[in-house]
Amino acid sequence: MPAQRDGPASGSADALDTDDAPLAAELADRDAVGLVAVGDRFDDDIRWLTRFSGPDRDYAFVATPASDADPDTNEGTDGVHATLCAPALFDEQARREFPGDAVRVDDQGDPAGVRAAAALADRGVESGTVLVPRGIPHDAAVYLERAGYEVASTDAVARARETKTDAEVGRLRRVQRAAIRGIARAEAILAEATVDPDADDGAGAVRWNGGVLSTERLRRQVNEVLAAHGVRDAGNTVIGAGATAADLHYTGTDVIRPGETVLLDVSPRGPDGYYGDVTRTFAVDPDGGWERRAYLAVEAAREAALEEVAAGVPASTVHEEAAAELAAHGFRVDSPEVGFTHSTGHGVGISLHEGPSLGGDDELAAGNVVTIEPGVYDPEEGGVRLEDLIVVTADGFEFLGEYPFSLVPRDRE
Amino acid sequence: MPAQRDGPASGSADALDTDDAPLAAELADRDAVGLVAVGDRFDDDIRWLTRFSGPDRDYAFVATPASDADPDTNEGTDGVHATLCAPALFDEQARREFPGDAVRVDDQGDPAGVRAAAALADRGVESGTVLVPRGIPHDAAVYLERAGYEVASTDAVARARETKTDAEVGRLRRVQRAAIRGIARAEAILAEATVDPDADDGAGAVRWNGGVLSTERLRRQVNEVLAAHGVRDAGNTVIGAGATAADLHYTGTDVIRPGETVLLDVSPRGPDGYYGDVTRTFAVDPDGGWERRAYLAVEAAREAALEEVAAGVPASTVHEEAAAELAAHGFRVDSPEVGFTHSTGHGVGISLHEGPSLGGDDELAAGNVVTIEPGVYDPEEGGVRLEDLIVVTADGFEFLGEYPFSLVPRDRE
Repeated sequence: MPAQRDGPASGSADALDTDDAPLAAELADRDAVGLVAVGDRFDDDIRWLTRFSGPDRDYAFVATPASDADPDTNEGTDGVHATLCAPALFDEQARREFPGDAVRVDDQGDPAGVRAAAALADRGVESGTVLVPRGIPHDAAVYLERAGYEVASTDAVARARETKTDAEVGRLRRVQRAAIRGIARAEAILAEATVDPDADDGAGAVRWNGGVLSTERLRRQVNEVLAAHGVRDAGNTVIGAGATAADLHYTGTDVIRPGETVLLDVSPRGPDGYYGDVTRTFAVDPDGGWERRAYLAVEAAREAALEEVAAGVPASTVHEEAAAELAAHGFRVDSPEVGFTHSTGHGVGISLHEGPSLGGDDELAAGNVVTIEPGVYDPEEGGVRLEDLIVVTADGFEFLGEYPFSLVPRDRE
Repeated sequence: MPAQRDGPASGSADALDTDDAPLAAELADRDAVGLVAVGDRFDDDIRWLTRFSGPDRDYAFVATPASDADPDTNEGTDGVHATLCAPALFDEQARREFPGDAVRVDDQGDPAGVRAAAALADRGVESGTVLVPRGIPHDAAVYLERAGYEVASTDAVARARETKTDAEVGRLRRVQRAAIRGIARAEAILAEATVDPDADDGAGAVRWNGGVLSTERLRRQVNEVLAAHGVRDAGNTVIGAGATAADLHYTGTDVIRPGETVLLDVSPRGPDGYYGDVTRTFAVDPDGGWERRAYLAVEAAREAALEEVAAGVPASTVHEEAAAELAAHGFRVDSPEVGFTHSTGHGVGISLHEGPSLGGDDELAAGNVVTIEPGVYDPEEGGVRLEDLIVVTADGFEFLGEYPFSLVPRDRE
């Protein structure tokens, strides 16, 4: 991706930056001398704070109030001075990717918490309260305490991440587009597939391209499409069939049978760290029983949920409308195993699951990106879910990618 | 993957288990009442301890001494009683995947650290020293302390992970095989590519399949092969060309030019969490200059390093032999930017980088799986690295997958 090469410093309108204003506000509110995050490439807080896709060992981000610290320079214009303590072998990459004020490669031999303390000291901060995300590695917190700081947890980073910038929404759109292409490939395969009623001693099976079609064969086809479009499955291509379509996280191998629901939940990650998330459900040669009733109910619940979405609406309202619609269609909404077993959606960004939750009490805000994903499940029958990704606007929402749906698959590639 | 579905309880010879004996020994040595790990699906310690590929929010593993706790049952035969505190929506998957003694879904609303404390209390452990990996989330450590335990860090998990079981080596072999197929695809493309000396205003470019070949086009081709073989690139398909071949972690887009080194480092992750790691370097229409000298030097260093490998040998000896060979060929081994800029290898397992490091002082042990990856770099010229994955044996090593190498690419698919 050229954007990654040119990096945030390229100044293109689409460049990813991180708005430091919420960090500055939190430092002021909490009367804190700094904010420190420590993590490796799998830590999404530090990925968002630094835009640095570093190694699988810990590095550190340090923010200090900047308004009066650098009056003569252009540093810290958002109100914080941001430092990345990078691993030496990643120095060049860190400078390319980090949109903050300074990259430090000092004190390489020390643990990341010790390096963060040294960076704080270099900013003239010798004591006081340092805010950390609550999941910071324990040793980093202990090193900060030993260096004389008082460590207190903050959810400011998680909260700030919930509201997306236009550049972030652009990244999410791109990944969602690739995810949809993956779904389109799977749907085309299912549309082309044939029914072999005699296979497996009369249990029947769906065949494609010369062999029995399994969830694993279908998953590999989807993942090839994702790879071809420059995103990665990230272990999140969940495909279930029949009973395993009722398993929310099934990634095993199952023969696909005629008539049973095939549920595809595709949540790839793009090169900048943002996720897509889309689910469609199909059946090859359905018989018009449970899966038809479930499909109609989920379609209605999806409509009901979407109708509620707008900035200022309590997130739980969206969930309650979906649940009410499913209940009206005769499905349970109170069991962890049968019926509607999960919430209507969750935030998506640099984590696949982040705030706001549509089961929670927060009000939706413009710039929230959330899934709308009603579904019903029955381990005896299968599972049906339809999931789309939307960005909340002042008076409604926009889809981040659209894709039609129907229980019977069609070739839409 | 059927193995994932059937899970460790299936009893097949190839089932992944986790040897609890080192944990039991550490609990005894440290006079500790338990060992607790907390993390999400991206935490490799908890992945290894639980074999559970859970969600992107924290869950907990709790081990307590078992030898005298359950004399009448078959539980904890390795000397610990192991509990997984799983998220409710993952209950079924946790029971399928976790080879330990108990899956708890109690106290869902509580943070993972609180749930771990409750699991300890249920095992009759109310106070004493609880060992944790040092990177455990800070809030989990604080919750354990608040519950009355003394928290102390241990590296027993990291050390135990360094010695692989036969089942683990089997998983590593499978992923490495897929990685090698990715390399073979890239090599075939480079062998088929043609030189267009007039492209880019006379700068020249390599063309393939109707267009200029870039590192990103090549990366997508490799990643499609990985997806087709059921593994994922995990963000680790690093391809550089010319100057960016000297960047150890380059994942951007570069036009591939005639004669320049094209370095491909492919490190996919398999469905059970184990990584492969292989690097080859090619040049389309090389002119016999720097890249030829570099290639011969790296080839010699690879041989020199491999000759040293055996159980009982200090890991640093392997590195020193490779470095000496590169120095004898006239390359620097003392700079972070030019010449041999990194260590000769690292352990690979459920983390891409784990112990033992070939730069370190530990002795190699049978069952260690390490990379052998000498390389030389020059930002003005390019980079050459050859990397293979081996398992250390009593008197030498075995390759986990073999693939030939030559500077000029050939179609070996």
